[in-house]
Amino acid sequence: MSNKPSIPKGTRDFSPIEMARRNYIFDTIKKVYKKYGFQQIETPAMENLNTLVGTGGDESDKLIFKILNSGDYLAKADEKALQEKNSNGLTKSIAEKALHYDLTVPFARYVVQNQNDITFPFRRFQIQPVWRADRPQKGRYREFYQCDADIIGSDSLLNEVDLIKIIDDVFTELFQGKLNYTVSINNRKILQGIVESVGEQDKFEQIVVAIDKYDKIGLEGVFKELKDMNIPEENSLTLMDLLAIREGGKIIEVNNNKDLFKLMFNQLGFLSQKIGNTINGQKGIEELEFVFEKLEKLGLKTANVKFDPTLARGLGYYTGTIIEVKVDNFPSICGGGRYDDLTGKFGLKDVSGVGISFGADRIYDVLLDNNLYPKFEGDSTQVLFVNFGEKEQDYCLPLLFQLRDAGINSEIYPDNAKMQKQMKFANNKNINYVVMVGSDEMASGKLTVKNMLTGTQEALTISELIEKCMNL
Amino acid sequence: MSNKPSIPKGTRDFSPIEMARRNYIFDTIKKVYKKYGFQQIETPAMENLNTLVGTGGDESDKLIFKILNSGDYLAKADEKALQEKNSNGLTKSIAEKALHYDLTVPFARYVVQNQNDITFPFRRFQIQPVWRADRPQKGRYREFYQCDADIIGSDSLLNEVDLIKIIDDVFTELFQGKLNYTVSINNRKILQGIVESVGEQDKFEQIVVAIDKYDKIGLEGVFKELKDMNIPEENSLTLMDLLAIREGGKIIEVNNNKDLFKLMFNQLGFLSQKIGNTINGQKGIEELEFVFEKLEKLGLKTANVKFDPTLARGLGYYTGTIIEVKVDNFPSICGGGRYDDLTGKFGLKDVSGVGISFGADRIYDVLLDNNLYPKFEGDSTQVLFVNFGEKEQDYCLPLLFQLRDAGINSEIYPDNAKMQKQMKFANNKNINYVVMVGSDEMASGKLTVKNMLTGTQEALTISELIEKCMNL
Repeated sequence: MSNKPSIPKGTRDFSPIEMARRNYIFDTIKKVYKKYGFQQIETPAMENLNTLVGTGGDESDKLIFKILNSGDYLAKADEKALQEKNSNGLTKSIAEKALHYDLTVPFARYVVQNQNDITFPFRRFQIQPVWRADRPQKGRYREFYQCDADIIGSDSLLNEVDLIKIIDDVFTELFQGKLNYTVSINNRKILQGIVESVGEQDKFEQIVVAIDKYDKIGLEGVFKELKDMNIPEENSLTLMDLLAIREGGKIIEVNNNKDLFKLMFNQLGFLSQKIGNTINGQKGIEELEFVFEKLEKLGLKTANVKFDPTLARGLGYYTGTIIEVKVDNFPSICGGGRYDDLTGKFGLKDVSGVGISFGADRIYDVLLDNNLYPKFEGDSTQVLFVNFGEKEQDYCLPLLFQLRDAGINSEIYPDNAKMQKQMKFANNKNINYVVMVGSDEMASGKLTVKNMLTGTQEALTISELIEKCMNL
Repeated sequence: MSNKPSIPKGTRDFSPIEMARRNYIFDTIKKVYKKYGFQQIETPAMENLNTLVGTGGDESDKLIFKILNSGDYLAKADEKALQEKNSNGLTKSIAEKALHYDLTVPFARYVVQNQNDITFPFRRFQIQPVWRADRPQKGRYREFYQCDADIIGSDSLLNEVDLIKIIDDVFTELFQGKLNYTVSINNRKILQGIVESVGEQDKFEQIVVAIDKYDKIGLEGVFKELKDMNIPEENSLTLMDLLAIREGGKIIEVNNNKDLFKLMFNQLGFLSQKIGNTINGQKGIEELEFVFEKLEKLGLKTANVKFDPTLARGLGYYTGTIIEVKVDNFPSICGGGRYDDLTGKFGLKDVSGVGISFGADRIYDVLLDNNLYPKFEGDSTQVLFVNFGEKEQDYCLPLLFQLRDAGINSEIYPDNAKMQKQMKFANNKNINYVVMVGSDEMASGKLTVKNMLTGTQEALTISELIEKCMNL
């Protein structure tokens, strides 16, 4: 193996500057989550394969990375599958463990397993990598981080209000008011009511799949799919109107949140007349009205909210509110919603939950493309002592440790290398101050300190240098 | 699957309080690493199996968790191994990826892969989980965190000095001076010199293995093993003397660092007379003398350092300094050393490195057993608004967001549940202040604030409450 080494497709190394940026995103999200009373947990990267399969459907199961059993795994392999070279059939008998593909299923498992120790409603957040055997492409990785917050064990819509306010707080801080973003909100029950009002509730799931494609295939495409399902044209037209993607409830663009809320209440009022006779529809409208009323009163800092009756976020497990956040030209950077029976699979019924997940990797790209990262000044080394040889080095060592004990990130170049090499090191590492100590400096006790940004030099005592760094 | 769910053997969930403690350890180590100029990187959990196998020997290879290829993996399976049901032989053809079992090998791979972008000497730290298919037992897990710092691309022994000072800084902070710990130091070259001085260099590796067992099998056991290698008794006796585990160089217990250093220089002087004629021996002694001299001058805050010529840390890849940190009654909590050719496997020769690794899981146990964790006051929710119903809730919501905007972790109970239930929630979540707002409070604008620790109540405006929390 003397070839240049590589890493698996779809995975990445993170360099120091990338880590600084990523930690900035994680820390911001973490701080906001904590402000709202969320507590951090972690679950193992590996779960029992049983825990993971069959929760997200067949397509999801294919995305799961399985871990080969240790030792002589073929001894317990499924004989028939082995003979038939049936990969799918063999897997369960040679791989009992797998890497989690999201943080929601492990969380549901955690809640059931620890239900006696948890005080409900439980507000938990979790920031960990997840793994998916997806086809890698730009912006889609096989290992990436999710940043989830969920509240489990409470039906209250105040939780939805909190989650949207969290989104507002996080992006207000990360985008610094310099970037437009939209929080689209819907309620799965409204979708149900709309479909029910035209009498097509039996085809609900297929219709949702078709509507979900609207952005990709356009109005005509959706019409065609509905026609293929044998839905009468009249019903299709009504559906499109109610979904506000044709004439009737068409979304008018507005530029301030006050008008946005007014518009949304109008839309909900319009829908209420049309689908108010369906139980689901009326319920969904009431739920959204509650959320919008609270948000309007509390105000939003920078978020544009939008009621989008077409928002479905796949067939997933959502049963109530659905949330999705977008910035122009980027795929969704945050999403979530309410689910009523996530823990059912593990034997705990009727526990409602609602949550959101920030996509750290996409947010990373958005901030980079828009030049929105801070400078991370104090994060790297602040002071470098140049190494001029043994005597000077021995003079500098106690000074170096004075700086470190004052909490200032600092180092001495470990060898008496050429001055040019040491300065290049300081430059490449973005070090703020370089300290030069020769015989003059040792005699006077004043260090020559070069500011690497401005190029200026000054003579400072160690205390003056410490003070300078502390005020940076 | 309606059975109570579980997680794989040797893995763990971490609850909020466990996370707070773990983050405290990670943050402390991270802060100290940064103070010494180290920069953080991360590498993927998965590496190509090729990268990992054959770096730590056959025993290590067995500890690697392999990831089953996606899709129809049997289509490309090794036909012969499949027929013979040869698990070992089959693995490479059905599992191209694996989970890293340490952070050192991925770091070596990273350095080679990114050598053109790295400024050497490169000080990197890395805090990530690693996975080992080890037999799980008390204190030994299949998924655990390592906290590594390495300097690569510098021979300078100042790096060793820095690493030992880092150990001193980290445990001074974590143990708060309340716990004795010992940093044992040796140099692989001294071990070589000792073995060489009795003319048994051909059996070096076997002898090291035997010596490494001294703590377990005692003096007699080691003697027996040496005898089994056909080493003449006379040579064994000399070996034992030089290793200071018999009469000659016996380690005297001393209680302060000044005497410790004096003792260590005496030991090194004694050894120098005996093995000074071997090249390795003399070199090793000089290296350790340099490190001890610097440490003595700079001083140590709480670390007890000890020269231990028997310290080998397995056969591993160490070629120079060897370091191990122990607290009474616990296995090693930190270890490391210098290696001269870690990147050689990946095609980059002659790059020297030195590093340490803190074992976060063991440190966790040490701090817990000795009651050394801080209280994590601000980490959880500080203020809870009791929910007395819709009107009161609407009055409280803007106040809640005033607290949050001031950076104070706070929440409102999401439902108008029984008072007892809400107070129990506050108690279980260790919330500091509970705010009660009824009609009196809404009329006066003064909130009734209960201190959950003392049980006392007072009437405060929202600004007074904010100030109170900020000064916590």
